[in-house]
Amino acid sequence: MKLIVAKSAGFCFGVKRAMDMALEAAKRFPKDLYTLGPLIHNPQAVEYLGQLGIEVKDKVENIPKGTVIFRSHGVSLQDLKKARENKLRIIDATCPIVKRAHFFAKFLHRNGYSLLIVGEADHPEVEAIRSYLDKDAEVVENARELKRLGPWEKLGIIAQTTQSFSLFKEIVANSLERAKEVRLFNTICRTTMVRQEEAVEIAKKVDCMMVIGGYNSGNTQRLAAICKEIQPHSYHIEMAREIHPRWLANRERVGITAGASTPSWIIKEVEEEIRRLKKA
Amino acid sequence: MKLIVAKSAGFCFGVKRAMDMALEAAKRFPKDLYTLGPLIHNPQAVEYLGQLGIEVKDKVENIPKGTVIFRSHGVSLQDLKKARENKLRIIDATCPIVKRAHFFAKFLHRNGYSLLIVGEADHPEVEAIRSYLDKDAEVVENARELKRLGPWEKLGIIAQTTQSFSLFKEIVANSLERAKEVRLFNTICRTTMVRQEEAVEIAKKVDCMMVIGGYNSGNTQRLAAICKEIQPHSYHIEMAREIHPRWLANRERVGITAGASTPSWIIKEVEEEIRRLKKA
Repeated sequence: MKLIVAKSAGFCFGVKRAMDMALEAAKRFPKDLYTLGPLIHNPQAVEYLGQLGIEVKDKVENIPKGTVIFRSHGVSLQDLKKARENKLRIIDATCPIVKRAHFFAKFLHRNGYSLLIVGEADHPEVEAIRSYLDKDAEVVENARELKRLGPWEKLGIIAQTTQSFSLFKEIVANSLERAKEVRLFNTICRTTMVRQEEAVEIAKKVDCMMVIGGYNSGNTQRLAAICKEIQPHSYHIEMAREIHPRWLANRERVGITAGASTPSWIIKEVEEEIRRLKKA
Repeated sequence: MKLIVAKSAGFCFGVKRAMDMALEAAKRFPKDLYTLGPLIHNPQAVEYLGQLGIEVKDKVENIPKGTVIFRSHGVSLQDLKKARENKLRIIDATCPIVKRAHFFAKFLHRNGYSLLIVGEADHPEVEAIRSYLDKDAEVVENARELKRLGPWEKLGIIAQTTQSFSLFKEIVANSLERAKEVRLFNTICRTTMVRQEEAVEIAKKVDCMMVIGGYNSGNTQRLAAICKEIQPHSYHIEMAREIHPRWLANRERVGITAGASTPSWIIKEVEEEIRRLKKA
């Protein structure tokens, strides 16, 4: 059996940075240490942080004192204000690439563009971006949703940083049917684009594909969908123990990729599990 | 037999305006009256203007005195300067929608964007647009050509006013692979878009399609290509007499459309010729 592990699998720069900041905080401020929502969209990694004393709170209201870590997806203006009011120590682990998307969203609005965000309306990153705008933005997750919007004189477009690049291209192309001027910034992070491209390349070469990452991770979900389109024998898993031996029967080339929030030790475990199952 | 004639076939606003201006000029300034290049891309219409005493000259150098009509495609900065130097009377029939494309090209350049024009490099409209820019623009006619260009920090895109809208969308989508910021103006004229859409609708319904217009007319060529993709029995003709009876054998639904520079009398003749051939 041949096993191909994507070079781009796993922690991206922003997630690695957030994890490092959290681990550092656990050393420096071990008491009353919280993240607002799970630090990253990976239950196993969050569990590990829990063991270090970092507790997840869903609302700032539930953090009366101590330190709060803002996760890589960013934080809404409302939550930022509340954290300041509560005089919490703030550790801002918002990914710099997400901050860049915030900047362009505000920039486009300030310059008179109606703003369209290609992304998931209920994703914390998108929610955070919208919270800083004077005028609300439209959010679309597929080309169909675009039909009910516009027309626009001046349309600005950005994307959730972990969105599918092909979807971004499709939305931009279709927006031309409804806008005279379009100004856009490609805010999809380079790592996401490279990861998607590599996943496509590997999926073409193998007869079974494992996509590892939290079920709540949007970028992993999209990675799985991209792989599934090319290789129907693609499976989204969170952990090694989920792999069913049946999946590997008669499969001679197995590919592995993982979302931006998947720790390397989980990828390693999956790799070992596949080798074990194929030997057995 | 059923005959469907596109409502959007024939003279667009800009061509009609140029023709009216030329006819008016023939009355007011009948001596030494010239157009710089053919007024519109339709040999039959140009022949008719010739009968009224309007002569075609390919170069301003060859017009020592009198009146020059600038055609709907616009004129290059060099030719404009020469015409002024030669103290010619200028009748500027440049289509206002083409002038709008000039404006946006200059606007994007002035604002620091590298400019990409979706169009034919050797089309007089594109040549004219480029002549007014301090820094030259890139011109692409298909997505393949895009691959050798960029990458860009700030990319501005406009289209030749009669370009294929689907090509414009494709180029814009693909440009995202090579640009961080893209700012574009949809400079394709509304009439062109409507004409292309209607041609697609008719081509789907018929078993034979006639596309009428000058062989030197870019917008007619694209119209023919669009129809051919949907209905293989599509024919680009300039005049009624070119229709081969064989084309109509066993065809029960015939569609007709025509480019922006095709006079209505030619469309009428084609319609009558088809009816005659089907009766014979």
